[in-house]
Amino acid sequence: MKASDYIVNFLIDKGVADVFGIPGGVVLDFLDSVGKRKGEIAAHLNYNEQASAFAACGYAQIAGKLAAAYATRGPGITNMVTGITNAFCESLPIFFITAHSHKSFLSDIRIEEEQEFDTIKMLSSVTKYAVKIENVESVRYEIEKACYFALNERPGPVLIDFLLSVLRADIDPKSQRPFIPEQDINDGQMSAKMIANCLKQELSKAKRPAVLIGNGIRQSGMSKYVERLIKKWNIPVLSSRSAQDIIPDSKNYYGYIGSHGIRYSNFILSKCDLLISLGNRLMFKPSSKTFGVITDRAKIIRIDVDKNEFLREIPNSVCFAADLRAVIPLLVDADIEWQDSTEWGSVCKKTKETLYANDSDFPVNVIVKVIKSVGSQTVITSDVGNNEFLLSRAYTLSGATNRILYSKSFGPLGISMPKAIGAFYSTKSKVLCFTGDQGLQMNIQELQFIVKENLPIVIVVLNNFSSGMIRDQQEKKFDSRFLCTTLNDGYSVPNIEKVATAFGMGYHRCDNKTDINALKSMLGDDGPVIIEILVDKTEEIIPHLPVGYPMQNIAPEIDGVLYERLERM
Amino acid sequence: MKASDYIVNFLIDKGVADVFGIPGGVVLDFLDSVGKRKGEIAAHLNYNEQASAFAACGYAQIAGKLAAAYATRGPGITNMVTGITNAFCESLPIFFITAHSHKSFLSDIRIEEEQEFDTIKMLSSVTKYAVKIENVESVRYEIEKACYFALNERPGPVLIDFLLSVLRADIDPKSQRPFIPEQDINDGQMSAKMIANCLKQELSKAKRPAVLIGNGIRQSGMSKYVERLIKKWNIPVLSSRSAQDIIPDSKNYYGYIGSHGIRYSNFILSKCDLLISLGNRLMFKPSSKTFGVITDRAKIIRIDVDKNEFLREIPNSVCFAADLRAVIPLLVDADIEWQDSTEWGSVCKKTKETLYANDSDFPVNVIVKVIKSVGSQTVITSDVGNNEFLLSRAYTLSGATNRILYSKSFGPLGISMPKAIGAFYSTKSKVLCFTGDQGLQMNIQELQFIVKENLPIVIVVLNNFSSGMIRDQQEKKFDSRFLCTTLNDGYSVPNIEKVATAFGMGYHRCDNKTDINALKSMLGDDGPVIIEILVDKTEEIIPHLPVGYPMQNIAPEIDGVLYERLERM
Repeated sequence: MKASDYIVNFLIDKGVADVFGIPGGVVLDFLDSVGKRKGEIAAHLNYNEQASAFAACGYAQIAGKLAAAYATRGPGITNMVTGITNAFCESLPIFFITAHSHKSFLSDIRIEEEQEFDTIKMLSSVTKYAVKIENVESVRYEIEKACYFALNERPGPVLIDFLLSVLRADIDPKSQRPFIPEQDINDGQMSAKMIANCLKQELSKAKRPAVLIGNGIRQSGMSKYVERLIKKWNIPVLSSRSAQDIIPDSKNYYGYIGSHGIRYSNFILSKCDLLISLGNRLMFKPSSKTFGVITDRAKIIRIDVDKNEFLREIPNSVCFAADLRAVIPLLVDADIEWQDSTEWGSVCKKTKETLYANDSDFPVNVIVKVIKSVGSQTVITSDVGNNEFLLSRAYTLSGATNRILYSKSFGPLGISMPKAIGAFYSTKSKVLCFTGDQGLQMNIQELQFIVKENLPIVIVVLNNFSSGMIRDQQEKKFDSRFLCTTLNDGYSVPNIEKVATAFGMGYHRCDNKTDINALKSMLGDDGPVIIEILVDKTEEIIPHLPVGYPMQNIAPEIDGVLYERLERM
Repeated sequence: MKASDYIVNFLIDKGVADVFGIPGGVVLDFLDSVGKRKGEIAAHLNYNEQASAFAACGYAQIAGKLAAAYATRGPGITNMVTGITNAFCESLPIFFITAHSHKSFLSDIRIEEEQEFDTIKMLSSVTKYAVKIENVESVRYEIEKACYFALNERPGPVLIDFLLSVLRADIDPKSQRPFIPEQDINDGQMSAKMIANCLKQELSKAKRPAVLIGNGIRQSGMSKYVERLIKKWNIPVLSSRSAQDIIPDSKNYYGYIGSHGIRYSNFILSKCDLLISLGNRLMFKPSSKTFGVITDRAKIIRIDVDKNEFLREIPNSVCFAADLRAVIPLLVDADIEWQDSTEWGSVCKKTKETLYANDSDFPVNVIVKVIKSVGSQTVITSDVGNNEFLLSRAYTLSGATNRILYSKSFGPLGISMPKAIGAFYSTKSKVLCFTGDQGLQMNIQELQFIVKENLPIVIVVLNNFSSGMIRDQQEKKFDSRFLCTTLNDGYSVPNIEKVATAFGMGYHRCDNKTDINALKSMLGDDGPVIIEILVDKTEEIIPHLPVGYPMQNIAPEIDGVLYERLERM
């Protein structure tokens, strides 16, 4: 069979039903092979490859399985670099497929063949595996190997760069060498036993333990098991912001922590004496005044599939490198208990109750209403900037259980809309896509995709007419010498209503006086629509941690007497 | 002084009056230093960093001197990768400035600090120099070194990635170590003598010599000297497509060659017995049937500053690695002559006259009129795809002498509009920006930039409602199995008039019946405007070389009898 047919067949076998990209000469054989399998796999056209890579990120993040994007040589694949690096930081298993026509690079020649460059040199450090396939005999081996790397241990993207003649060659995959991964002798039993012993011992001493979950739970498909584990132990659970949708409706869940965390979540974290971290990178700086309080008070048990994460040392912690897929199911059945302390449970409850209504001004309350107006099957995507903090807060307050996709580690502005496209194809459900006015512009060309395919995507633009987060830094650190961040000094926003109309989308504007019921009919529509929420100035309404504040003392500060009372609890 | 002030001062000293980028936290000190020098240097805000990098390309390409773009860490700088690689392929001297907050990377840790990654690993192979400046003492040395690399020998982009604390540090540049380039003992005298000897000898034997000029002439600022050289020798000159604006009105100039070259230019090239290549990479494949005719008939003298180019061996050639800046002025004065052959001159003239009117159908004739309607100071920018071949052809037929900017080697779709922005700031002249319907969409967000700053940019969209060049390949090589390239199979274009209106731009539509005079008033306007030229199907009207054809036999083929007559001349 033709090599490109084999690759497409491989993707279909792995459950990839959609590929994103923009065609160019050297990838037409691949595209043609996709076209031959209509009904099983579809090729979607974006209007900048950056969006194709982001769409694949959304697809993989929702599905928890392989996704694929393709690009032509040269500028095609370089346009995907932001999406590839994002996939690496978010641990998303994606095949990035490209091709080249010229076999190998002579050293030091700047342009050997028009448009071509050394993709492997450029992308090795931001992929789990990057390979040029230039030998017909190695097609099966390399594809299987790339797939294994993408999906196993800590998942991540792979780059596969075909020589055009290989893509066109006839191969007999059955006669080709397969990839056989090294057998992992440790099947998780041993790790689980060691971890169980440690947990048993530490929980027997702990008065105020908490579990901290991260995105690794989702990556490993362990959400359900974690829910059972938590129920059995009856321990408060905190999460990273990007993991706030893993067990959102568990009675043990107390929100997400962090520098823009939920006020009560940070308070609870500050009171722990034992922190069991599952699939969470613990990115805080333990030496900072802000987060030092954690390691001062709590022992930390770190369980992570990626042992390299332990290179970042955290005092007062023990580390276990283990695949949660192997370990968590065994922990559920292990003989581990915590002697439930009514005191700790009630402290957590009281802290939450006391602070719950805080930080819920406009526009958070409008976002809450928007989220509540859509079904729980609706996927939510987030962009980057102040808008994401408003959204995170609103998600918590809404009591939603919807999937919500962040891009926290790499944080590329403008990812929300293309991710929404990928999320739609992955779920075939409505998508609620939140973005800011600057993020919207970053990939505004994809409005054309959404309109042409008539996707049920509601784009909610939180428009503060500024590069808000950066403007705030200029205000605080540069004596309000604003530059390129507000309407007065170089930043600007097109008229969003006119843009929506030009592309052929529905549009609704909303401010703090708008009747939410007026929005509801639009939210119910199946076609694409933009809802613009006018936000005057978001800085003060977004809870955040000024440098040097302890993590429970989030700005804007609460009443001092109340703060002291909560501190003493 | 503050390190960031020093850097901005350095840029101003080098004549950089504009920087392009999007601010983010770690580059605010740099931006603030730019802001302090208002009137001497300006910070311009794009809406995707891809466009900032492209704008810097346009700026450097026009000015022939240093340009600068800045980006924040992470996605900011990865969004520039396409522009950085383009600058490398186009040999453009650009400072790409970014910053990071975390000192050094532990091996193998995937995300050490949110958003940060190893920029040097990623970008070393597509820059002339890539450096992390993490030591306060090395600021002056590294900046001077980067500048030297960017501008000297074969120019190119450099990446400068500051540690944030270094950017903020106080430095005394005078007390810091300077960068002193190694003295080049060979001052060009020796190279010039060797080259002169070779030329003298070969020209004495040649009956049909020609000079082939490339972009290196522009890069080295040698356009005027080349003009004098040509006049003195009285030899026909051919060029690459991207060098067609170097001596466009010289009576010795016979157009650009190549697979989409001018018909008479390729004919003349096929008849040469000596080809003197100056600053041209000679990218053709000498082994191909198409271009084999050159080396079969002609001896080639290659003069290039980048000796690595000679790794690509071409039969029947002699190579001289030499900086044209040192050599060409000496050649002008050297005792070299060619015994003018009336026969060869008349063959060239006749060939040109006979074929001149060929290939000038609609839309080429409309483009000719548009070019003729603007002043010679107007800069022209080109995108990538079929539209660039129409534009190149029209430029030749119009007899224009305007600067025209291509991006041939790397060929990133969507570069024309952001390049036009950079070209405007470099010249403060009107810019005529040609693009296709797919290229327009690629960076459509920059319409906001152009409108906000009210730039005198005329965007001419050659709209064939398809990804034309790729569609043509699907027709020929894949039995017309179109996918993602036409309106019937996934490709689409927004209503360009509505988009122009939404962004607040003027708009005019034009087809083969439009009176060009109706366009003239719009072309005279100072503000931004879009002119949409409706092109039904461009494939057949674009002269091109089918695989295996000799280079003078361009499709669509001319009358057989005429062809034979021209061949025999």
